[in-house]
Amino acid sequence: MKISLVGSGRVAFHLAKALLGQGHHIVQVYARDFEKTQKFAEQFQAKACQSLREFQPADLIILAVSDSAIAVLVKQIHELFPETLMVHTSGSTDIEVISQVHEKAGVFYPLQTFSLERDVDWSATPLFVEAVTDTDQELLSDLANSLSGRVYQYTSKQRLTLHLAAVFACNFSNYCFDMAKQVVDKEQVDFSLLYPLILETAKKATENDPKQMQTGPAVRGDQNILAMHQDLLAQANRDDLKQVYQLLSDGIVKRHHSD
Amino acid sequence: MKISLVGSGRVAFHLAKALLGQGHHIVQVYARDFEKTQKFAEQFQAKACQSLREFQPADLIILAVSDSAIAVLVKQIHELFPETLMVHTSGSTDIEVISQVHEKAGVFYPLQTFSLERDVDWSATPLFVEAVTDTDQELLSDLANSLSGRVYQYTSKQRLTLHLAAVFACNFSNYCFDMAKQVVDKEQVDFSLLYPLILETAKKATENDPKQMQTGPAVRGDQNILAMHQDLLAQANRDDLKQVYQLLSDGIVKRHHSD
Repeated sequence: MKISLVGSGRVAFHLAKALLGQGHHIVQVYARDFEKTQKFAEQFQAKACQSLREFQPADLIILAVSDSAIAVLVKQIHELFPETLMVHTSGSTDIEVISQVHEKAGVFYPLQTFSLERDVDWSATPLFVEAVTDTDQELLSDLANSLSGRVYQYTSKQRLTLHLAAVFACNFSNYCFDMAKQVVDKEQVDFSLLYPLILETAKKATENDPKQMQTGPAVRGDQNILAMHQDLLAQANRDDLKQVYQLLSDGIVKRHHSD
Repeated sequence: MKISLVGSGRVAFHLAKALLGQGHHIVQVYARDFEKTQKFAEQFQAKACQSLREFQPADLIILAVSDSAIAVLVKQIHELFPETLMVHTSGSTDIEVISQVHEKAGVFYPLQTFSLERDVDWSATPLFVEAVTDTDQELLSDLANSLSGRVYQYTSKQRLTLHLAAVFACNFSNYCFDMAKQVVDKEQVDFSLLYPLILETAKKATENDPKQMQTGPAVRGDQNILAMHQDLLAQANRDDLKQVYQLLSDGIVKRHHSD
């Protein structure tokens, strides 16, 4: 397929790389920062465009941009290419943000966390596709199947639920790891000592019900340790971490002692 | 070594299993619930005791019990076996809780999350030992080395820091997974779709600085999505999850935009 790409961030990067790897052609790229766009386009043998007006016709236009940028781009692109299938890659943006302007609308959402430093295992990454017409739905499913063995046709509402859950499962758990690192860094204790614990915690939660896997002073109802840890954070002038400690511990206690 | 074990919980179970596997002898077990103690002792060819007074002499007494139970047990055991090395397995309890009563005091702390349903990879589990005397320190290090390749001599203060960090890295991240499951369960979306994301998030945090690996609407400063997700939680009558969402998102924003 001949694909036009809007965006030069992490999702755009990994998507372009995977699509190119499957023999698709990234014809052109447009993004806010032209210098970044040039560097980006070079890696994928694509043309860097300074304006959407430079875009040539393609089979598919992918908007891999922040949620807040989608609506404006849809209007601009619709005027230029009213007949071309256009998709966004967002978990939380409804397909209607495209379809109310542009009938050939779709969504192509990979449920994964992307970093420039890390390769993506696309075969294990669930892909969620949605389209207004059956033909476009089929086309997007085929494209998704060329990347991943786990392709699902999901509505915008189901996708939003998934994305909200992903914020808890990924963004917030990563922040917990980051807070743990701040705690040990302050005392010159090596964060890597926690690696086996972090990996086992994630593994447990994917092989059993995480509710059943809960351990620690809160689920044991150990008030002395809970108080001691909070004192320690207060003494270290980390009232921010103390507040998180308290709210999450309260949540765990309620979850396990009032259900 | 001939070992006496106090406790029949998850740490006691996995420790007994590992020590038996290394050729040590679990002579006897005592725990609050005698029926449970009997079942426990049976698995490890140990004698189940209804009282500490039934204990025979051993080389080492391990207290694998909740933090709040340690002090009382130390006094009782000290009267019976004033000369036997006694250790606890807690991250947050100071060695002094033993040593102020009983000179032959030590700590044997495995930094891991234990579930009865899951085997423990002891070779990858960091073990932290502490003792009052050099001889006991050496004895505990040898015992630890027989289980794990990662043995550290840590003070009670360093161990407390580690345990506090572990609460964030393990207990709180697991609770994030549990909250994610609650979000998808409510909409009949399959939690297993999040498995690749959960595993990749943990892997990322152990191969890179988790601060640098932070993704999601909060670090992007996407106020629309943050507000939408919180509205969704409020509509679902999950003010508890909304409060967590808000506090952790605020924390991520501050962490990334004021450092």
